[in-house]
Amino acid sequence: MGVEELSGGLSTGKSEKFDLIVVGAGIIGLSSAYHLKDENPDLEIAVLDRAPAAGQGDTAKSAGAFRNMFTSEVNRLLAGTSIDFYGHVQKDLGFNLDLKYVGYLWLVTDGQSRRLEPVLDSMRKEGVQIKIWEKKELKDTIQGIGLEFTQSDEEARIIGAENVARGLQGIKCGIVSPDLVANFYEQEFRKMGGTIKYNTKVDSLLLEPVSKLDIPGEPLIWQHKKIVGVKTNAGNMLADKTVVSAGCWANELLEPLGIDARFKPKKRQIFALRGSRIEDLLNTKGFNEYGILPFTITPQAGVFIRPEPTERGFWVGAADELGRSFGFEEDPQPERNYYTYSMYPVLSKYFPHFKDVSPTNMWAGLYDVNTLDALPYLFEEEGAIVTGGLSGSGIMKADAVGRMIAALYDKKQSADLYGGRKIEVTRLGISNRNVGIEKFVL
Amino acid sequence: MGVEELSGGLSTGKSEKFDLIVVGAGIIGLSSAYHLKDENPDLEIAVLDRAPAAGQGDTAKSAGAFRNMFTSEVNRLLAGTSIDFYGHVQKDLGFNLDLKYVGYLWLVTDGQSRRLEPVLDSMRKEGVQIKIWEKKELKDTIQGIGLEFTQSDEEARIIGAENVARGLQGIKCGIVSPDLVANFYEQEFRKMGGTIKYNTKVDSLLLEPVSKLDIPGEPLIWQHKKIVGVKTNAGNMLADKTVVSAGCWANELLEPLGIDARFKPKKRQIFALRGSRIEDLLNTKGFNEYGILPFTITPQAGVFIRPEPTERGFWVGAADELGRSFGFEEDPQPERNYYTYSMYPVLSKYFPHFKDVSPTNMWAGLYDVNTLDALPYLFEEEGAIVTGGLSGSGIMKADAVGRMIAALYDKKQSADLYGGRKIEVTRLGISNRNVGIEKFVL
Repeated sequence: MGVEELSGGLSTGKSEKFDLIVVGAGIIGLSSAYHLKDENPDLEIAVLDRAPAAGQGDTAKSAGAFRNMFTSEVNRLLAGTSIDFYGHVQKDLGFNLDLKYVGYLWLVTDGQSRRLEPVLDSMRKEGVQIKIWEKKELKDTIQGIGLEFTQSDEEARIIGAENVARGLQGIKCGIVSPDLVANFYEQEFRKMGGTIKYNTKVDSLLLEPVSKLDIPGEPLIWQHKKIVGVKTNAGNMLADKTVVSAGCWANELLEPLGIDARFKPKKRQIFALRGSRIEDLLNTKGFNEYGILPFTITPQAGVFIRPEPTERGFWVGAADELGRSFGFEEDPQPERNYYTYSMYPVLSKYFPHFKDVSPTNMWAGLYDVNTLDALPYLFEEEGAIVTGGLSGSGIMKADAVGRMIAALYDKKQSADLYGGRKIEVTRLGISNRNVGIEKFVL
Repeated sequence: MGVEELSGGLSTGKSEKFDLIVVGAGIIGLSSAYHLKDENPDLEIAVLDRAPAAGQGDTAKSAGAFRNMFTSEVNRLLAGTSIDFYGHVQKDLGFNLDLKYVGYLWLVTDGQSRRLEPVLDSMRKEGVQIKIWEKKELKDTIQGIGLEFTQSDEEARIIGAENVARGLQGIKCGIVSPDLVANFYEQEFRKMGGTIKYNTKVDSLLLEPVSKLDIPGEPLIWQHKKIVGVKTNAGNMLADKTVVSAGCWANELLEPLGIDARFKPKKRQIFALRGSRIEDLLNTKGFNEYGILPFTITPQAGVFIRPEPTERGFWVGAADELGRSFGFEEDPQPERNYYTYSMYPVLSKYFPHFKDVSPTNMWAGLYDVNTLDALPYLFEEEGAIVTGGLSGSGIMKADAVGRMIAALYDKKQSADLYGGRKIEVTRLGISNRNVGIEKFVL
């Protein structure tokens, strides 16, 4: 190990040492740190983040929603057990996460509905609870919703709005506060004696030859090498193992080392809206015990509305694809024109409640999109455990991914997920990747 | 189609129109253009490249070697049939490609050799011709080769050089001139009436709404959109279909549109060396009809030597991995220190012929590395066909990939490869990707 030589060659002063460093105090980093410490109480674990508090990066920009409606077994395992764990935290441990099973409601066209019939059947067989709402029921339940568009409706024609045939409600779906989930993991990790260093920006990973020779350009291609820690604005910090759970920052850290995090960053924006008609829409009864509208997805361009009861309004987002660039930005900004020209025309057709209302707040974050199968990657490189590619499902899968990272660290073949289910760690790896194909795609 | 409006909105003057635009006159672009035109003689096809001649980008930086030693059926199909086609071009059509079946020679340690035994068996069953050279034979045949290192050999100890146990010779492997292969495709494409525009840099792909509305930010997320051509330094050029076969430039073109080319660029360097001892090594008899040493790979860090008979020397390269950054550069430069400190210590142990000789020439190019399975991707997006991820195998797979692109364009399920073999086009796609696992990896 060339670690000891580092303080001479590289750092600003003496390097701190830990057993394990976790890069990123977002939801994945904190869940990982919690489960790593829970499984290995004697390890000295440090979580590092440039932000001054937990979950202040892309975690804070999330829409904070979760669903268990997937056909892929891996998706169901990751999301289903994470949701169950959050439920347990809130109900049994009394730690409020603002978790509400408000449901998801997909408004689907006749074509979509027919195509999805076998997909719904296969999910039902796996125990996923789905309720079908016929058009008339939707109309009677959601006051003012737009479900049918006439030939003379020029706007509908231009945007290509199709009639809604029915609604698919996922029962065990809902909303949760990403901040509060992050806070839960942070608090419990600290209670067990874990270290968190905020305002600590990881500039790079330290890749060192196992035997250092002081030759120019080390590590050279014939040298055995290992990630031995990180370089930060507070000096070098060394660890036997480094967990890279930095979301979209992972590429920035890994690419210089020739490691592919296997995702591309994509900006996603959320716009918050309120108003009296919007509040009426929010207070739609009949879908859940809270008497509010579910997280609802329109049939077009993935435009969705996410109830935010504490703000008496909705957050509006969209699952944009072709035509919206990939790319990393340190501080992505929302674009008002994006709301006005891309979201609003769709939104106001299905939900006229939003007509002529302007967003009161807006923000943007980065998805780490795995364009192959949209599921996370989890793999080891010399001295490091890397995860990424959560593809916007970080909140709803964080607990399971954290447990898988702990299992990988502990060299266990499979991770024990919450509720007693198991998953083989290699299923999210590269050479033996086995995540199946997700067929519930709209 | 909003194409007609383009000349008003976007371009510098009237846009040229083609049936098909191929971006990139590298080996993949030219093979594609040739096979597309061959299958569709009436199509107006234009190949665009920023360079002033064929194959002047990363094609020209290639080591120009080929092999058929693979366990993956797809690898064998792509490389095997391409090699056969080049052989046919040179032998039957009389177009010199400087193709020589000099063989590949892997020098392997005892551990590698044992691990590879079942792998060699499986390749032999598929008809791959492999000859085993025992250590003594190697020693007797290759004058001055280093195969065993003593405990007192400090250099060998430092670089971790392991003794060579035997050599694995691939018979139907060898070298070919990338320039000449590119020239062949270019010439034949032109003969059929194809257009090539050199000095024409493609700055971006034109993604347009199918129905243009002159709203800010078009194409908007709810609009149907399509790639309708390219923006170049010579104005916009429109086409019904655009083939993106631009190697490492593909990411630059596709990322702004939110399309993932699914590879990462990595610099690879080649150093040319000559000298009297090196020429003696080159003129090693016993391996092939040409009386020269095969393309030979050392057991360490993928350091290889590629015979270059016309220069009476070798090209030296390495398959560097961990520790060498990913990243795009317009004009990657070779690093003399990389030769001196990373390659030379390994090279001079196995081949003392290179001792104290400096490179006479050096260059660098970019691999488009698919870190998932190292095989090419081939898929369609609205209006475009995209290929990439050749991972350094562009020359040896270009003919087959060109045929697959033509088949995809023609909406055929499978491509007819040279020699009568077939391959389903979706095998290189995303959702039904089926390339198998390559087990012949050292």
